[in-house]
Amino acid sequence: MYIEKINSPTDIKALDIEQLNTLAEEIRNGLMNRLSKRGGHFGPNFGFVEATIALHYVFDSPKDKFVFDVSHQCYTHKMLTGRKKSFFSDMHFSDISGYTNPEESEHDFFNVGHTSTSISLACGLAKGRDLKGESGNVVAIIGDGSLSGGEALEGLDFAPELASNFIILVNDNDMSIAENHGGLYKDLKALRDSKGKCECNLFKAMGLDYFYVADGNNIAELISVFRKVKDIDHPTVVHINTLKGKGFEPAETHKEEWHWHMPFDPITGNDISTYGGENYGDMTCDFLLKKMKSDKNVVAIVAAVPTNIGFTQEKRKAAGEQFIDVGIAEEHAVAMASGIAKAGGKPVFATHSSFFQRTYDQISQDLCINNNSATLLVNTASVYGMHDITHLGIYDIPMMSNIPNLVYLAPTNCEEYFAMLDWSIEQNMYPVAVRIPCNGVIHTDKPVNSDFSELNRYNITQQGSEIAIIALGDFYQIGEELANLISDRTGNPPTLINPRYITGIDTKVLEQLKSSHSTVITLEDGILDGGFGEKISRFYGPSDMMVYNYGLKKEFLDRYTVEDVLRHNHLTPEQIYNDIF
Amino acid sequence: MYIEKINSPTDIKALDIEQLNTLAEEIRNGLMNRLSKRGGHFGPNFGFVEATIALHYVFDSPKDKFVFDVSHQCYTHKMLTGRKKSFFSDMHFSDISGYTNPEESEHDFFNVGHTSTSISLACGLAKGRDLKGESGNVVAIIGDGSLSGGEALEGLDFAPELASNFIILVNDNDMSIAENHGGLYKDLKALRDSKGKCECNLFKAMGLDYFYVADGNNIAELISVFRKVKDIDHPTVVHINTLKGKGFEPAETHKEEWHWHMPFDPITGNDISTYGGENYGDMTCDFLLKKMKSDKNVVAIVAAVPTNIGFTQEKRKAAGEQFIDVGIAEEHAVAMASGIAKAGGKPVFATHSSFFQRTYDQISQDLCINNNSATLLVNTASVYGMHDITHLGIYDIPMMSNIPNLVYLAPTNCEEYFAMLDWSIEQNMYPVAVRIPCNGVIHTDKPVNSDFSELNRYNITQQGSEIAIIALGDFYQIGEELANLISDRTGNPPTLINPRYITGIDTKVLEQLKSSHSTVITLEDGILDGGFGEKISRFYGPSDMMVYNYGLKKEFLDRYTVEDVLRHNHLTPEQIYNDIF
Repeated sequence: MYIEKINSPTDIKALDIEQLNTLAEEIRNGLMNRLSKRGGHFGPNFGFVEATIALHYVFDSPKDKFVFDVSHQCYTHKMLTGRKKSFFSDMHFSDISGYTNPEESEHDFFNVGHTSTSISLACGLAKGRDLKGESGNVVAIIGDGSLSGGEALEGLDFAPELASNFIILVNDNDMSIAENHGGLYKDLKALRDSKGKCECNLFKAMGLDYFYVADGNNIAELISVFRKVKDIDHPTVVHINTLKGKGFEPAETHKEEWHWHMPFDPITGNDISTYGGENYGDMTCDFLLKKMKSDKNVVAIVAAVPTNIGFTQEKRKAAGEQFIDVGIAEEHAVAMASGIAKAGGKPVFATHSSFFQRTYDQISQDLCINNNSATLLVNTASVYGMHDITHLGIYDIPMMSNIPNLVYLAPTNCEEYFAMLDWSIEQNMYPVAVRIPCNGVIHTDKPVNSDFSELNRYNITQQGSEIAIIALGDFYQIGEELANLISDRTGNPPTLINPRYITGIDTKVLEQLKSSHSTVITLEDGILDGGFGEKISRFYGPSDMMVYNYGLKKEFLDRYTVEDVLRHNHLTPEQIYNDIF
Repeated sequence: MYIEKINSPTDIKALDIEQLNTLAEEIRNGLMNRLSKRGGHFGPNFGFVEATIALHYVFDSPKDKFVFDVSHQCYTHKMLTGRKKSFFSDMHFSDISGYTNPEESEHDFFNVGHTSTSISLACGLAKGRDLKGESGNVVAIIGDGSLSGGEALEGLDFAPELASNFIILVNDNDMSIAENHGGLYKDLKALRDSKGKCECNLFKAMGLDYFYVADGNNIAELISVFRKVKDIDHPTVVHINTLKGKGFEPAETHKEEWHWHMPFDPITGNDISTYGGENYGDMTCDFLLKKMKSDKNVVAIVAAVPTNIGFTQEKRKAAGEQFIDVGIAEEHAVAMASGIAKAGGKPVFATHSSFFQRTYDQISQDLCINNNSATLLVNTASVYGMHDITHLGIYDIPMMSNIPNLVYLAPTNCEEYFAMLDWSIEQNMYPVAVRIPCNGVIHTDKPVNSDFSELNRYNITQQGSEIAIIALGDFYQIGEELANLISDRTGNPPTLINPRYITGIDTKVLEQLKSSHSTVITLEDGILDGGFGEKISRFYGPSDMMVYNYGLKKEFLDRYTVEDVLRHNHLTPEQIYNDIF
């Protein structure tokens, strides 16, 4: 096997085209070994094997620098830069992350996981090179799906201002995570159809030079064009047409399902594990579809991750004009939601907590200053959510809850979540965000409130004395356990409170607690800095009340286990009990 | 005068072209009256008089809806929609804001002040119209400068997905606030040069239909094209070429200086008031230019507001390749700064606090996860900063200081500011943000620290007992006054602390205070929610320390006087004294 002898990119430079093609097969075997057992980004990696080989064949990494967008297509790059055992040896799967990572290799320049960042980051490397009078190529590698993001478009527009070497490799597989949305994709199609000859060319309109490769999975073709642009003295685009998921029939056919895939049988492609039972994605989608049927003003909006709230192809079709996928364009999504609400529609925009970070200004300026009644559904907003450093959902409370006018709600169970969502859609007084629960689908048989229009009213779910536990959202169940523990051990039941509102405090309830309580414990599923508990601490600052805020430390976590993080932050009921008593 | 008889847009529909041209002159007189006495956005409004008249002549506002980008060009629109006395009658200047404002008129749909939002907001109005089965035109009005912003480009890309009426009026005056930067401006020039005929067309590449008007200050030409696109059944761009500042020679000649202008003599254009003395813009620029001379790795980055740190045309020229204006593209600016730092450069990106809101995700993902040592200079971050609801600088502490890895510094005087800036540029350990002081240039003759690498170390500037005042940044001087007041009245001097670091607390100092202090007062120039003081409250939560957090209420302020806001938030030393004693 050629791959056995490849420990750094220089080792592939001696191979001929036939040998490189064999190497591509070997690499796909390594990808298959890891992905079938571990899961991961299937389609992006299977489609980009040949291009990665050709890049390393022509350019000289790390002097020549590759910046991968999202970096979910970097597996072949990792194999060719000293990390192959994490694909071929199951014991070493955990040695690497699923994204580029400078701590792993000098061939990686950034920790990247969000889309649309590569061009700007790479512009920085190029400008730094020029300031220092150094040489070398800088190559940004970006998929067609990522091009619709504001940061990528800003970068594309700025790039020609660099009067020096800069290469943008556009990996066009005619897919985002789902299908693409946006006018620029018509131009990409026209460019593919005309083999790059179409006069109306987005990249040229942005001021860039342009090269086209019709078969982006053909190593010889790629090498030929990469040689042409190597050491070029001005910014250029190389537009290549690849096949997403190439080399595995199920992935070539069902591109959306195989963008990211759970572990599977490498022969049939069937899932190994079956995940049954209820999940909030499907339930949210069904809830919204039902609302849409009875009210044509309800519209669901997603930004390239439709299944994050259960909108499979079939259900997107069922929703028709009442479903919008804006593509990777979260800024546009929030501003458009504000406009829809202003026009009397009932928009619900859902994405992951980590991706809401891309819309801070739109939430503030376009939505909240105008006080339009759009609904934001914040998914995987939890320590129980995604565990990669670039996808953490533990920062949205400080980010969003301190924006004026926004009402941010934290449900503690399934029934409360849908009551909040329903109320938010139907009201026209406030911009509202709701955290989708992330600690499993927990039901209650107790009645839940259905009206949240009187803001910042806490629910006292258990009246006790001495100690009050204010347990927000997903951490309500920890609060319940803690309450029971205190009750059992001291014989004195504490008060338990479901605060429901993240964006304001119930001063009446908090004031009342002073008369029969000496200690308040807050619990929140997110970092403490700038969060919910600190507002309670501020309230009680000039009083005798002892206040303990529990939540997560402000830090970037990476590939953690939830249990470790909870223990490290003293978040088990036992630990909290021992802290207090 | 025709303007006398115009109380709503319908009143102009009976006028002929000659009368409309006379109306344009009258409107310019009204603009001149207000702008020469009050100051405001001169160039954008003088250039857009004819287009606004033609819009209201052809379309039927408010059934047809205009969404103005930035909305700094909406003065003529305000005159034609019932608000003319705020231009012709000095007593009524304060009746209106400088931006569109739904509280003023049914012809305004959004409070807008940031750039690049109009297309997305208007897409929402169009989608809402379609969901409800209503009719009417929706027109987004956007300048060429705003087109480079990510949100605008996302909107431009998404717009063709609307299969219904939607008009994007591109008001191209070949200027941003300063000159434009970015590749797309070459295409705009090619389109202007070819009278819209150039094959490579950014708007068509984005999937949009396209019309061109060569003289965007010619009412007849504009009316003719607007009539063509009125009630069009699909999204289209109307690209018009206008003259910024048209009708006033100084503004036509010196477009950058006249984008926004202070009060002036309407004959000569000379400033009425002279603002002398030191200012942080000029001082920062001179400091950076000096650094650049001795170190070619230092590079200043701005996003279309170069003079916010003093980079006038002359000084931009002096900086040469070590100055970058990315245009309106803050996301790109922060990501590129991260890349430059990674490559060993020393980037300093400066913009206003309110505009940093557009880069939350880039600060988090591109910069802080990668821990690259770029410097962010946060300007007008203060209650003393800009006073319009869309430009407030009182939210950056909760927004930025809760992002892991960032070191956010708050200087208390001029010497400390430049020490922090110098340290930040020279160190390579952390991403650092510095709040530029906004309470005047205050000097100290005491020595200031020059090394900030040991994080979160507070400076005890006066050792006292019983009460400790922790006074952050611009509010340090309020802390000093308060300390003197307490000292004078009680005979017992309090401790005064300059915390310097916003992003972390000095647990050692705070722990020590417990032994000889019973009360801690925090002061911060920003909203309290999610801010600095709450972290101190959290620290002391499980203790006997009484903690009082002083700062601003979480709310959107608009056109306020600083004194009122300070008093309303109990921020005078006298008020604080009375609260505590």
